[in-house]
Amino acid sequence: MQNFVWFNPTKILFGKGTIPAIGRETAAWGKRCLLVYGGGSVIKNGILHTVVTALKDAGVETIEHGGVKSNPLLSHVQEGIAKAKAHQAEVIVAVGGGSVLDSGKAICAGSVVDHDVWKFFTGKKSVKSALPLTTVLTLAASGSEMNSGMVITRDDTREKFGFGSQQLFPKVSILDPEATFTVPPDYTAYGAVDAIAHVLEFYMTKEDQATPVQDRIMEGLIENAMESCDRCLADPRDFHGRADLMWTATLALNGLTGAGVGRAGFPMHMIEHSLSALYDVPHGAGLSVVIPGWLRWRARTDTARLEQLGGRIFGISGMDKASAAEETVVRLEQWFARVSSPIRLAQLGIPAADIPAIAANAVKLAKIWRLDGYSLEVIAEILRLCA
Amino acid sequence: MQNFVWFNPTKILFGKGTIPAIGRETAAWGKRCLLVYGGGSVIKNGILHTVVTALKDAGVETIEHGGVKSNPLLSHVQEGIAKAKAHQAEVIVAVGGGSVLDSGKAICAGSVVDHDVWKFFTGKKSVKSALPLTTVLTLAASGSEMNSGMVITRDDTREKFGFGSQQLFPKVSILDPEATFTVPPDYTAYGAVDAIAHVLEFYMTKEDQATPVQDRIMEGLIENAMESCDRCLADPRDFHGRADLMWTATLALNGLTGAGVGRAGFPMHMIEHSLSALYDVPHGAGLSVVIPGWLRWRARTDTARLEQLGGRIFGISGMDKASAAEETVVRLEQWFARVSSPIRLAQLGIPAADIPAIAANAVKLAKIWRLDGYSLEVIAEILRLCA
Repeated sequence: MQNFVWFNPTKILFGKGTIPAIGRETAAWGKRCLLVYGGGSVIKNGILHTVVTALKDAGVETIEHGGVKSNPLLSHVQEGIAKAKAHQAEVIVAVGGGSVLDSGKAICAGSVVDHDVWKFFTGKKSVKSALPLTTVLTLAASGSEMNSGMVITRDDTREKFGFGSQQLFPKVSILDPEATFTVPPDYTAYGAVDAIAHVLEFYMTKEDQATPVQDRIMEGLIENAMESCDRCLADPRDFHGRADLMWTATLALNGLTGAGVGRAGFPMHMIEHSLSALYDVPHGAGLSVVIPGWLRWRARTDTARLEQLGGRIFGISGMDKASAAEETVVRLEQWFARVSSPIRLAQLGIPAADIPAIAANAVKLAKIWRLDGYSLEVIAEILRLCA
Repeated sequence: MQNFVWFNPTKILFGKGTIPAIGRETAAWGKRCLLVYGGGSVIKNGILHTVVTALKDAGVETIEHGGVKSNPLLSHVQEGIAKAKAHQAEVIVAVGGGSVLDSGKAICAGSVVDHDVWKFFTGKKSVKSALPLTTVLTLAASGSEMNSGMVITRDDTREKFGFGSQQLFPKVSILDPEATFTVPPDYTAYGAVDAIAHVLEFYMTKEDQATPVQDRIMEGLIENAMESCDRCLADPRDFHGRADLMWTATLALNGLTGAGVGRAGFPMHMIEHSLSALYDVPHGAGLSVVIPGWLRWRARTDTARLEQLGGRIFGISGMDKASAAEETVVRLEQWFARVSSPIRLAQLGIPAADIPAIAANAVKLAKIWRLDGYSLEVIAEILRLCA
């Protein structure tokens, strides 16, 4: 096990009927808030109304900043920062999925500095302080509700970059599984894929050493992401299925899986970010294409991890290492296909001819994230395995 | 899944060479500290010296309060509170295992009030504020390093009571697996038993509902407690074995296993507390006696959980439910015996004739902990299954 620091001060309120608590939880941090949200769903299902009412009842003065898109844009974050400054917001409230929460975090960071917020993403500036953030989660996927990271796409350059800071853990996140009852099947599946990808980034990390307790937790999370997703697809109003998927996705990226495992690097995310930045595909859909290709490339040098994974979660046995590793990838791929998440670039409408351009975009992030082995050629080779 | 609140603000520094960081981490909370520790081991292995030097280098003025015993006593806590008040301590530093950390917590709570600290344990007063606590852990067992609870024995009445408060999470806990290299085989095993007991209290809780992700995490922790303990016994200086056991024991009682599972009640601990309060047996040794008896009693009404546990961690299959549950208890018991942890009252030197007196002691705690089903008769019945 490698040395690590664990620190995660986010308070989670989990369960049925918890959303109105956003009023008192937010009031504890400030009396003037910027309320960040996305498109229609939180309006249609009444969650935004519940939040607005709760904030009003708690005496929190609110300015709204709706319209966050999937693969959230820097320009919209910048507008939010301008509003927060003009309104002298003391706290940011984000209501939605990972895109909304990530936008909220970026606004928290950008509202207390004079320079452009993008400088945090390119590593030119680091966060010294930030506005406090409270959140209401409506999608089980990104884990943003209990971590300090975020990903934003810069409009003009189509760079989808991410960063994190200890200042940016949400103070409070409210997770009511009922808020996800109306998530459609495709986004339910993409959320489960995202959670699986987060676990795999740590499970397959290069710097791995013997970490048996983390391994078992990670294997359990992957099994559970698949099982709970299956239950949600069979019955979108299965409370326990939704609850399991929601808490699984949170645990998949709150520090638990990575503690002691070493620096993960996030190569699958690095490559996927280019797919969704260039083609605006949903993050989870991009990931279910990248995961099998990347795993096949990785299996050439690290068959043992895949063999263990397949043995434990799919019961694969009686094969040589290489076949067991390949069979593990096939089983994962089959599950992605069964929940209608794409597994090849063509299914995303991306022609193989675009691979060099995608690789050229991705390699920029590989440099910023210090993913040393990922040259233009290596990324192109992995992408060909996704074609 | 049931509603829950997750909040755990303890910062963990884990790994080789982390102990000297106690200086700066403590200095961040105060410049005058009371240093709480136990008997000889931290002096012999040099850890106390490292801590004292680090505190001095960081400019923290230190008063020592050594001599905490296993099954720590209220009188010693009260002395510590008097010292902390006289010294105007701003922060408490605890260096040792669960007994020392628990004493540190009680001193933190008692040093800011005028009434006797025992009132917190009997529920007559609740904690409103406390001194901050930093810790260096030297035993993988109690989980006290990352939770807000503690257990103390009142000298005159031999009541071993516990309570918790959000004010009492350690601010920082330092976990260096090398600090446990010199833990002797018996206490290494008792620590693993303690971790397993913590997991089982939640796994077997009455109010359990479908919690598949928590189940898998808990099953993984139990498997890992056994495996890592075996490694530590085979080679006390196996760094990764010690590291696995240490982190497993922390995760076994930091809120993770219980989140969404419901109120656990801790009936096995309730009964064991009477054993160690009345006979001063090590907590883990008492637990390995209580666990099989309590599980056999529980299996009469809740075979399904034990069947699942045995199937997943021991591979038990092809039996009817009741036999599978009994086989699960037998396998656990065999493992306890293999690591030389006692499994019957007689091995602790406790005659069956004492059962009524033990039950009479335990039922007091059952009332305070609101364990409604646990009458004098029920506790005596369970104890007979431990005989």
